[in-house]
Amino acid sequence: MGLGEFGRIEKFFKPLASGFPGALGLDDDAAVLPVEDLTGLVVSNDAVVAGVHFRPDDPADLVARKALRCNLSDMAAMGAEPWAYTLTLALSTTDDAAVGDQWVEALALGLAKDQEIFGVHLIGGDSVSTPGPTMLSITIFGKCVGGTVLRRSGARVGDDVYVSGTIGDAALGLRVLDGSLDAEENAAFLVDRYHLPRPRVVLGAALLDYATAAMDVSDGLAQDLSHICAASKVGAELRAEDVPLSPVARSLVDAGGVSIAEILGGGDDYELLFTAPKTARETVTKRSRDAAVDVSRIGEIVEGLGLTVRDGDGEVVPLDRLGYRHG
Amino acid sequence: MGLGEFGRIEKFFKPLASGFPGALGLDDDAAVLPVEDLTGLVVSNDAVVAGVHFRPDDPADLVARKALRCNLSDMAAMGAEPWAYTLTLALSTTDDAAVGDQWVEALALGLAKDQEIFGVHLIGGDSVSTPGPTMLSITIFGKCVGGTVLRRSGARVGDDVYVSGTIGDAALGLRVLDGSLDAEENAAFLVDRYHLPRPRVVLGAALLDYATAAMDVSDGLAQDLSHICAASKVGAELRAEDVPLSPVARSLVDAGGVSIAEILGGGDDYELLFTAPKTARETVTKRSRDAAVDVSRIGEIVEGLGLTVRDGDGEVVPLDRLGYRHG
Repeated sequence: MGLGEFGRIEKFFKPLASGFPGALGLDDDAAVLPVEDLTGLVVSNDAVVAGVHFRPDDPADLVARKALRCNLSDMAAMGAEPWAYTLTLALSTTDDAAVGDQWVEALALGLAKDQEIFGVHLIGGDSVSTPGPTMLSITIFGKCVGGTVLRRSGARVGDDVYVSGTIGDAALGLRVLDGSLDAEENAAFLVDRYHLPRPRVVLGAALLDYATAAMDVSDGLAQDLSHICAASKVGAELRAEDVPLSPVARSLVDAGGVSIAEILGGGDDYELLFTAPKTARETVTKRSRDAAVDVSRIGEIVEGLGLTVRDGDGEVVPLDRLGYRHG
Repeated sequence: MGLGEFGRIEKFFKPLASGFPGALGLDDDAAVLPVEDLTGLVVSNDAVVAGVHFRPDDPADLVARKALRCNLSDMAAMGAEPWAYTLTLALSTTDDAAVGDQWVEALALGLAKDQEIFGVHLIGGDSVSTPGPTMLSITIFGKCVGGTVLRRSGARVGDDVYVSGTIGDAALGLRVLDGSLDAEENAAFLVDRYHLPRPRVVLGAALLDYATAAMDVSDGLAQDLSHICAASKVGAELRAEDVPLSPVARSLVDAGGVSIAEILGGGDDYELLFTAPKTARETVTKRSRDAAVDVSRIGEIVEGLGLTVRDGDGEVVPLDRLGYRHG
């Protein structure tokens, strides 16, 4: 006999809310966010489903942390300061995927770790049963810093295109887990990149007055840059050679086991993709250094509509070879 | 071939966000709530799963409206003014429950109707696929009116216990749908009460300075009054005879086909349960009349802990006969 919904809330979730008075101890019908000093509250949500967005045998603490980090990454993309979140937890009751109190406890421990790292607090949620797969849906709240946010729609012709960190590792990590890629001694690095994205919240806020457009890379670099193009009504040229790869990903590409298409089309990077005027290059370099995040210039905003990818010889790479989903 | 996630957002969901500039047209990674004039933002969320919280063959527009109304009811319980919401939609892809664009279109139409009635706006969300049942998770935002909210924890010994509207109809409506209750010409009334709760948002806000404790009735009147007792560290005596029944429910109870236990233990009422000092009786009557909602005095807050239910003869009714879930 398990703890039941009320028992789980009491034991696992109330401690996650104890540092935020407005959570009202999770005892009431709602939480109250004290917004009197804010101009804007930034709100986003992202859901993950077992078997779709995570592997049913992924450790619960990592599932929870990744779900939270995907939401934190949305705050980074807006240049908002993460503050609090609510969690809807649908727990599977089917025989082969039943989720017990131990799983929920591990999940709460994972959340506790990331609450400390990112300074956010659980303030509410809902816990339900489902005969389907376990699912987490998080709604995150961030403070609008200095009254402004980063948007996807501000890229201008002539702007540089930047991306943080390295691209493709998470998608390769998923291949390691699926057994379709043998990365030998580098397997753990790639799997970690899949399980634990690094939301670039400090960098996002630091770019507020300099980036003209921003979003986080979740669907794959090529597709997400197309989203910025569409929102900004501009085109972009992406230099495939300049896309930053980790040494591990680089060696796999060089060895021929992984194509550049996979790198540009793979999802789950949760790096920051942004544009900034050429005049801001020094500032971008300085701000990214202050945020302790590497950023790379990977292309340029151009006239027209949509994305063009060029290889090292300047030749156009057809988009349908990049796993790019049209529409 | 369906519209896909992006197509559905474009066609069905963007129109729901068009009246709220901070939704940023659903084009960005997050929405921005302009909170500069607020002291507090009230946040709640509630999720519903097909086959658990709604019947898989319930009409999509009613499923959506009920999901939204359950969340609106949480705003009522806090005395908050509903403002905006996000929707996470997990759409079933399994053969026997596949949910297509028509279903999503109907769902959006239902939301549009209630957005107009309750003055709320969609500001964001996530849309995912699931091999399990379809699920909706809504996070709702309300304005904290006059800087205060209603809580569960303020009931004091001697306070009256009130409930709005009538109790039990929704649970009976579910029995009609299940085929376990033949309500003849009253079937439609009860089914409507199950499908479309009436969140008491106007009444909730009107009670802000008078009610000492409040919550909405979702798990059943008896259990929810116990929640107020626990949060307020008091006891309550509930007079079963004074619990307001619709003429339909009354006739079913009188005919013996429905027990009072079912009425007090049935869920889904989404009426407002609250306590107020005896000195506030006239005000409560006036405020509920202004809000065009009937309220009934159904008991009293007493010393001790927990709930006592008394029948018309003053005899104690054992709680385990009320479908009351302990703990």
